[in-house]
Amino acid sequence: MKPLSVEPLAVDLNCDMGESFGAYKIGNDEAILPFITSANIACGYHAGDPMVMQRTVQLALQHKVAVGAHPGLPDLVGFGRREMAVSAAEVYAMVVYQIGALQAIAKAEGAALHHVKPHGALYNMAAVNPQLAQAIAEAVYKVCPEAVLYGLAGSTLIDAGKAVGIRTANEVFADRTYQQDGTLTSRRQPDALITDPNKAVQQVVRMVKENKVKSQQQKDVSIQADTVCIHGDGSHALEFAKFINETLTKENIQLKAV
Amino acid sequence: MKPLSVEPLAVDLNCDMGESFGAYKIGNDEAILPFITSANIACGYHAGDPMVMQRTVQLALQHKVAVGAHPGLPDLVGFGRREMAVSAAEVYAMVVYQIGALQAIAKAEGAALHHVKPHGALYNMAAVNPQLAQAIAEAVYKVCPEAVLYGLAGSTLIDAGKAVGIRTANEVFADRTYQQDGTLTSRRQPDALITDPNKAVQQVVRMVKENKVKSQQQKDVSIQADTVCIHGDGSHALEFAKFINETLTKENIQLKAV
Amino acid sequence: MKPLSVEPLAVDLNCDMGESFGAYKIGNDEAILPFITSANIACGYHAGDPMVMQRTVQLALQHKVAVGAHPGLPDLVGFGRREMAVSAAEVYAMVVYQIGALQAIAKAEGAALHHVKPHGALYNMAAVNPQLAQAIAEAVYKVCPEAVLYGLAGSTLIDAGKAVGIRTANEVFADRTYQQDGTLTSRRQPDALITDPNKAVQQVVRMVKENKVKSQQQKDVSIQADTVCIHGDGSHALEFAKFINETLTKENIQLKAV
Amino acid sequence: MKPLSVEPLAVDLNCDMGESFGAYKIGNDEAILPFITSANIACGYHAGDPMVMQRTVQLALQHKVAVGAHPGLPDLVGFGRREMAVSAAEVYAMVVYQIGALQAIAKAEGAALHHVKPHGALYNMAAVNPQLAQAIAEAVYKVCPEAVLYGLAGSTLIDAGKAVGIRTANEVFADRTYQQDGTLTSRRQPDALITDPNKAVQQVVRMVKENKVKSQQQKDVSIQADTVCIHGDGSHALEFAKFINETLTKENIQLKAV
Repeated sequence: MKPLSVEPLAVDLNCDMGESFGAYKIGNDEAILPFITSANIACGYHAGDPMVMQRTVQLALQHKVAVGAHPGLPDLVGFGRREMAVSAAEVYAMVVYQIGALQAIAKAEGAALHHVKPHGALYNMAAVNPQLAQAIAEAVYKVCPEAVLYGLAGSTLIDAGKAVGIRTANEVFADRTYQQDGTLTSRRQPDALITDPNKAVQQVVRMVKENKVKSQQQKDVSIQADTVCIHGDGSHALEFAKFINETLTKENIQLKAV
Repeated sequence: MKPLSVEPLAVDLNCDMGESFGAYKIGNDEAILPFITSANIACGYHAGDPMVMQRTVQLALQHKVAVGAHPGLPDLVGFGRREMAVSAAEVYAMVVYQIGALQAIAKAEGAALHHVKPHGALYNMAAVNPQLAQAIAEAVYKVCPEAVLYGLAGSTLIDAGKAVGIRTANEVFADRTYQQDGTLTSRRQPDALITDPNKAVQQVVRMVKENKVKSQQQKDVSIQADTVCIHGDGSHALEFAKFINETLTKENIQLKAV
Repeated sequence: MKPLSVEPLAVDLNCDMGESFGAYKIGNDEAILPFITSANIACGYHAGDPMVMQRTVQLALQHKVAVGAHPGLPDLVGFGRREMAVSAAEVYAMVVYQIGALQAIAKAEGAALHHVKPHGALYNMAAVNPQLAQAIAEAVYKVCPEAVLYGLAGSTLIDAGKAVGIRTANEVFADRTYQQDGTLTSRRQPDALITDPNKAVQQVVRMVKENKVKSQQQKDVSIQADTVCIHGDGSHALEFAKFINETLTKENIQLKAV
Repeated sequence: MKPLSVEPLAVDLNCDMGESFGAYKIGNDEAILPFITSANIACGYHAGDPMVMQRTVQLALQHKVAVGAHPGLPDLVGFGRREMAVSAAEVYAMVVYQIGALQAIAKAEGAALHHVKPHGALYNMAAVNPQLAQAIAEAVYKVCPEAVLYGLAGSTLIDAGKAVGIRTANEVFADRTYQQDGTLTSRRQPDALITDPNKAVQQVVRMVKENKVKSQQQKDVSIQADTVCIHGDGSHALEFAKFINETLTKENIQLKAV
């Protein structure tokens, strides 16, 4: 007999937000917020500006969604998606800067900083580069040690967060396939993406319930799923956010911030 | 008979710092720090970058100089000196952003944010524009209500700081002449600058001791001198910083952050 | 009897284009191009980037629309709409720079630079400030003396272009009301905008055919209409572009670049 | 007997110039110009701004030094020295843009564009990456086919320039050691730099006269020396520029732009 005291299964749904800039609008923040539990808010380097950050924090508060910082590389025209040969010292300083800026805007609106998730190329580099991962983890630790560091499940960034003594959240993807070693299939491969929404959500359900994912090589791989990345742009983003929210709820998986 | 408990006269010497950017060096921070008591550190908008900010905070700590934020307009090529038609809402958000960034860097280095002084065109606009002044005062109040707001002595920015309930510091200039109404003589006027170091320092001594300054019209004007602006660039900056420090000390004026 | 040699009435329809930036999309360039005759292409200061500029020149060529440079203030987050205290020397240099960049991209695609129209705050300042107007006119003259300078009809910028010896085009607005002195009614006034598309187009028809516009004070004012500004963004931009194109054509007004 | 009609030996001395930005000064352009024959002028991406570009072109003209464009990566804070994962299409467009901007400024001052030399990380990437090298070569070809493309001697960039049909100049370094395969010793190696000015200049003399350089492995390697890179910053830059200019002249090597 299952004991009554068992912690119910839960997962976080996070989404990149506040990536508009000046007159430029990107994403569909207001429509997606009802279906997610944590927002990664751009901090002005790869996207976002102070006015957009303020408005996004206000929206997150209205929807009771956790406010997170989403620091990126200083590459607005490349949307932070192009890897750059930045040093660990540079990454440390730019992440401290961006977290601080978002934290101040959050504080001014009455919100606390809940988490930090690096963006784009910075996220990818930190998943495999121990020096950059440590720089990010230390930046979080020094500025806001109570914040949760989001990183690719099982990656170097998660290790760095644990080593520095902050809480971490293993991020998984609904619409990406996995390799035998637990890494994501490169987008350059033909079957990197899962385009069937049902398959995508079922992959998440299994990751949450069984801590397993079927790799592209058709073998089960262990994976920890603390938070699921929801895409905010693209034509089907809103539908999918709604669909995954509803399906996980039906599966008795509680949706809440880490 | 004068009571023994009288508070000794004191004034703060502040200087803009951390205005280097990437490979570009400006100013003489390390040499000037021994002679000042508070540092206004650029926050990446008109000057400064995260690495420079970090190094400048470290230097200020080493010299026991108070760490302040020096937010400016988003105009790196113009060094924040060109007025821009920014709205109060934009100023509020960009000041919150910049204060937060500097505060995080300070916190990471073990320092607290002591004060906020707007830079260049933002400083000048805030001295006369009540909406912009209020925006800056509110930004300080919301992010760091214990910080001191530095503004032109007797200006609209000082009024705004008082109205919002934060501490303020009236800033005076050693090397600028004053008008009958207590404002600075425009730099476009021929006698805007005091080039004789002795005269410049004596103007400060009198402002601190007597709360008065002789205007360009040769009449005494009341002025409150809480902090003196020391210039960090220019060929004589260092000599003058040393000279004013020594002269004020000889005059039994205590040098300490506000 | 009307002489056969009479030049048919003609006007140019111009539209701001290429204002996307990196991952950010703005405007509806491809849909609007069939209905206009000249494109003002952003040059990377207030909007646009080299890739966007290249794609926009290609699109203009496909639609046989004249390629123009649309230089702006260095204020991406403000979309070049905020006035800045720039000097004439700064404006001259930044306009030479931006024209040159667009001209090179045009040349690389096999197009010639047809015209230059300043953007936003730079356009507005140049309409009334003789020093800035002269700086822009000289920049065009020095880099591409065969290009046409577009400016507010009857404004200081048009005068500056004539004085420097380049061709000019008086720009008129379909959807804005005019004052007795030929200037536009400020957008802060309640009746600055003409929201009825019929009225807007009829105002243009009369400006082209009779060189007159009825001012807000209900008196006829002389106006020269060489080119009409078509807005590219907003929900009705495309419909209106189509409507004004068709109506002017029905009125036997030839649509062609200046 | 040596025939009289032999072309005298000649080489170009090039130096990066115009890398100041707004209030920030870098380099010692005016002092170095008398000793060089071609100037690589920054174009606003990694350094430089329109006013600086204009002033630098004027200085180059005064000293009869050839005017070249020095395009870089869009990374002002990193001074264009950090490699970025830019695509060939992005590089093509950003180089066209930057060449065009400098060409316009040159034209406005009465100068022609003589050459193009990519800067920093862009130079290094183009030396080994055929796609990026081709993108740069095509940009030069499309915008200014009469310009000379400067690249690392014997590198992929030189090959790309030849393939596209433009003139190229093989660049050599006085103060760097070479490997057996003709590449530069990595700066991470202890003996990458030649610090003895005599050795440095003698290396150049031999490269010009004998088309050979002694590699770090103590074997002679063939090298073509069309232009020598002179550094403009550093405490000994000016002295070295003067010294190499005088020594090459004494060795009957003519100094002139390619």
